[in-house]
Amino acid sequence: MLETDLKYILDTFFTLFTMTLIIFMVPGFAMLEAGLVRTKNVSAVLTINVMIYAVASLAFLLVGYKIAFGSWDSLNSSIWAVFMFQMAFVGKTVNIMSGGVSERVRIIPLAIFTVIMGAVIYPLAVNLSWGADILAGTMLDIDMYDLAGSTVIHSTGGWALLAAILVIGARRGRYVDGRIRVIPASNIPLVVLGALLLWIGWFGFNGGSVGSISSVESANLVAKTIMNTNSAGLSGAIIAGILMHIRYKLLDITMILNGALGGLVAVTAAPDLYNMYTPIIVGAIGGALVVFAVPIFDKLRLDDPVGALSVHLVNGIWGTLAVGIFVKDVSFVSQLKGVVVIGVFAFSVSYTVLFLINKFSKFRASDEAQLVGMDINECGVESYPEFKSAI
Amino acid sequence: MLETDLKYILDTFFTLFTMTLIIFMVPGFAMLEAGLVRTKNVSAVLTINVMIYAVASLAFLLVGYKIAFGSWDSLNSSIWAVFMFQMAFVGKTVNIMSGGVSERVRIIPLAIFTVIMGAVIYPLAVNLSWGADILAGTMLDIDMYDLAGSTVIHSTGGWALLAAILVIGARRGRYVDGRIRVIPASNIPLVVLGALLLWIGWFGFNGGSVGSISSVESANLVAKTIMNTNSAGLSGAIIAGILMHIRYKLLDITMILNGALGGLVAVTAAPDLYNMYTPIIVGAIGGALVVFAVPIFDKLRLDDPVGALSVHLVNGIWGTLAVGIFVKDVSFVSQLKGVVVIGVFAFSVSYTVLFLINKFSKFRASDEAQLVGMDINECGVESYPEFKSAI
Amino acid sequence: MLETDLKYILDTFFTLFTMTLIIFMVPGFAMLEAGLVRTKNVSAVLTINVMIYAVASLAFLLVGYKIAFGSWDSLNSSIWAVFMFQMAFVGKTVNIMSGGVSERVRIIPLAIFTVIMGAVIYPLAVNLSWGADILAGTMLDIDMYDLAGSTVIHSTGGWALLAAILVIGARRGRYVDGRIRVIPASNIPLVVLGALLLWIGWFGFNGGSVGSISSVESANLVAKTIMNTNSAGLSGAIIAGILMHIRYKLLDITMILNGALGGLVAVTAAPDLYNMYTPIIVGAIGGALVVFAVPIFDKLRLDDPVGALSVHLVNGIWGTLAVGIFVKDVSFVSQLKGVVVIGVFAFSVSYTVLFLINKFSKFRASDEAQLVGMDINECGVESYPEFKSAI
Repeated sequence: MLETDLKYILDTFFTLFTMTLIIFMVPGFAMLEAGLVRTKNVSAVLTINVMIYAVASLAFLLVGYKIAFGSWDSLNSSIWAVFMFQMAFVGKTVNIMSGGVSERVRIIPLAIFTVIMGAVIYPLAVNLSWGADILAGTMLDIDMYDLAGSTVIHSTGGWALLAAILVIGARRGRYVDGRIRVIPASNIPLVVLGALLLWIGWFGFNGGSVGSISSVESANLVAKTIMNTNSAGLSGAIIAGILMHIRYKLLDITMILNGALGGLVAVTAAPDLYNMYTPIIVGAIGGALVVFAVPIFDKLRLDDPVGALSVHLVNGIWGTLAVGIFVKDVSFVSQLKGVVVIGVFAFSVSYTVLFLINKFSKFRASDEAQLVGMDINECGVESYPEFKSAI
Repeated sequence: MLETDLKYILDTFFTLFTMTLIIFMVPGFAMLEAGLVRTKNVSAVLTINVMIYAVASLAFLLVGYKIAFGSWDSLNSSIWAVFMFQMAFVGKTVNIMSGGVSERVRIIPLAIFTVIMGAVIYPLAVNLSWGADILAGTMLDIDMYDLAGSTVIHSTGGWALLAAILVIGARRGRYVDGRIRVIPASNIPLVVLGALLLWIGWFGFNGGSVGSISSVESANLVAKTIMNTNSAGLSGAIIAGILMHIRYKLLDITMILNGALGGLVAVTAAPDLYNMYTPIIVGAIGGALVVFAVPIFDKLRLDDPVGALSVHLVNGIWGTLAVGIFVKDVSFVSQLKGVVVIGVFAFSVSYTVLFLINKFSKFRASDEAQLVGMDINECGVESYPEFKSAI
Repeated sequence: MLETDLKYILDTFFTLFTMTLIIFMVPGFAMLEAGLVRTKNVSAVLTINVMIYAVASLAFLLVGYKIAFGSWDSLNSSIWAVFMFQMAFVGKTVNIMSGGVSERVRIIPLAIFTVIMGAVIYPLAVNLSWGADILAGTMLDIDMYDLAGSTVIHSTGGWALLAAILVIGARRGRYVDGRIRVIPASNIPLVVLGALLLWIGWFGFNGGSVGSISSVESANLVAKTIMNTNSAGLSGAIIAGILMHIRYKLLDITMILNGALGGLVAVTAAPDLYNMYTPIIVGAIGGALVVFAVPIFDKLRLDDPVGALSVHLVNGIWGTLAVGIFVKDVSFVSQLKGVVVIGVFAFSVSYTVLFLINKFSKFRASDEAQLVGMDINECGVESYPEFKSAI
């Protein structure tokens, strides 16, 4: 067998393997969010998650992939595997955004936004950072290191979410008379299941982003990337647990898991470059940032039922900057420039598009609809019709 | 390393990978069905799913494999991996059938049927289409293209289900005084989790059915097969959502997921032969067929709580015929002949076996047992004993 | 490509694949236990599962790995992949132990125990059996065959659990006035989901323990190991079902699944050595042992809400001894010696450590705390706050 053929086979197989792990993030996000919202909004949240996967993926197949990468070509592994791997990423930005506007966002305008995100916005963000790079040679050309998307995926989604919260507003009854009403998660096992599926998906996300396993060097790099990814999740969870225990003498599992996810987001920019100890620090800071950011966003009246701003926006930024701090050959300024350029692009384009869609199809459900619940209004389905409500 | 040895290693590894994905369909079917039935029947449905995996697999190991393939031999990859891959398919036909008779079927006669299905009926269907082919050279010899079983798995299961519904009848209280009583799903998150696990399992089902990844051509074919499989699911979901929205202004997630599953069943006959656009059409038609077929079966008083007839029987047929329509070198008549021969075989044998078993061990639970619920009657277990019932 | 390089790549990829399957056991254990306990203790159980994964893994990374294997070196595949694979095992021993003391164990002392288990106790057990072997040449040197840890993982966890039950005692209200109060599982779908994820994880656990897939012989061995692992689960489930039906005319799904898990534990010592029929016998005996052991432990007032003593301790021992019975070249006496040495080590060290920790941080929650539930007391979170309780 030719060595090039063998490498092609190995890398195609490897790409399909890591892609499959990423697809586990579809039930991952769905279960996490279904567990975090109230029972009256569970079916709507689930419908949104399935819709995002279907619509963003098809938009990327029909339009976006060409914008991101310039052509349907691949020399080193099957283009179909490469496409599936890239496609597995697309919905994530919208997932991050939709989770944070749960319990009041309407599905149809969100579906329209998803088409545009999957066909144009996300592909352009990829183009600028990993892809064909239409700004190459200009002043805005980015030279940031971002292996698997702390900025390209997570902050982009986070900025889109910030724009969405500004357009849509908080949930009915969340901030009343200057007070913040706590709305508890309705199903903790689903939260845990979802977060753990996301964690496993991250092995594929980051490991697969190395792009090849067909040499001893790349095989080592893939393995180190997966190990470092995992370590940041471990320390993020532990720090969040310790901080919660210091403050409240209680171990709130939803905060521990958001700490883990924060650590995972933070390490995503360079799990391949770090030694085996750095991710423990990067992830621990990531987990701590989540614990501190969640109440701050609430004080700013940015209503985010799943903590996505803290997990994805804050740690997407932190993780990208961390590479400039902890890795010798990476310039902090380049990282900062990447964060700013992609941030300005993602926020302004998302805000504009959301604002325009909102003109003819309101994103926000009426107060009456929110009171009854999004499930009845949008889906005609109750999520747990046989369980008697305690509230 | 010898090239033949390298190929053997790669294909064994690949087969084990895709087999594992298929095994995720065991929790997939279990969660989907547990979410779709009423709480009083959830444990029974789950017991049935675990029983099917255990009983069908062991029957296939001890008896069925030899009937299907003639011998325990494999030249190109480990026979143990090939067996596990084939074994992962076996329970699926019974899963399809058992789901459709949920909420009134008794477990013991179903276990007896599962033994016969796993040991004889399914192996014979495989023998005729993919296997040793005992009818080779006769008038009934089939020359159908069916990569991963639109007909061999899905219609076979669908025909068995039709036979079972005729033998067992509708659920108590479903069709009363000429009216159809709507019985809502009890746990929507489980439905979504189950459907998404099935979706992921399908990558292994169809991708693994290519049979090899150890050449550049086959690696490409595997990747294209997985991509095309996925695309049909995407368009099936989207079309079902659009149709539901047009009709009811509502997005019923259970119908959207059944649309996705319908698309996945439909593409299963030839995801390797289609170009990258055809599966979008095949899947869209599949999703639409589900939306239209569900109320028709209800009008025919064929009571099917999970929509398995629409998903598996209708789309198994549609998907097999579609190959004859969209692929130049495949004869529509051969496809039709395959559909008919396997259909007549599967329906008549299933009906006969079900009818005979029913003589000495009734499939149908009594009206009283159905009223109390299958869980108490068959399992002695309540599924959610601490949650107060709203009904 | 050099053959050694190719083998290195293949084995690194294979190790990452099987490691990922094992990580699915984290949600597996979490869902299984969350389903088996009462709703008032679900968040605590979930927190414990996430804590164990985070704490045990980090302790193993920072301290334990070196103790177990002597050095961070690997010649035949990436050390980072090997580490991740070994790390995926660590938490399991504590998982087994923590599940059995659910509903009354406090999290903080358990976290301290987890640090010591992940950093020292488990690494020493590995050292003695698979690793650097500090007792080589002494009278206590073990020569047991235990491929994937019937003894090293499962009995070790089981002995630690027995020690923990002796230190912590039974749940409040479980044994009153000489009677045993039955406490039903609160969420059967989670039990099934968890058990099936464990089952899939076992493919990685045992298959990966072969250690290599890069020759025809090892590829065959991996595939046979996975097939044999699965077969023991099949027969364990079936036997448990048959015994339940004979005794009670009912099919209790939790017992069927514990039968399957018992079969899987039992086969784990030598799935690579058995022919294709032996695991069916080993697993069937394993499933039967679970059915008989569960009521015996209850009569002994060893309160174990998830049946972990029966599944892991009894079958860990049975499975290790079975190798000496069914495999010609393995000495029964060596197997027995391994069981005893590791058992004495695991029980006495665990008991001592638990006893000492218990001196300054009580493992047992007060009766009042147990009455309110561990969720409120330890986590400040209710698992299903919107569902009205029926009890």
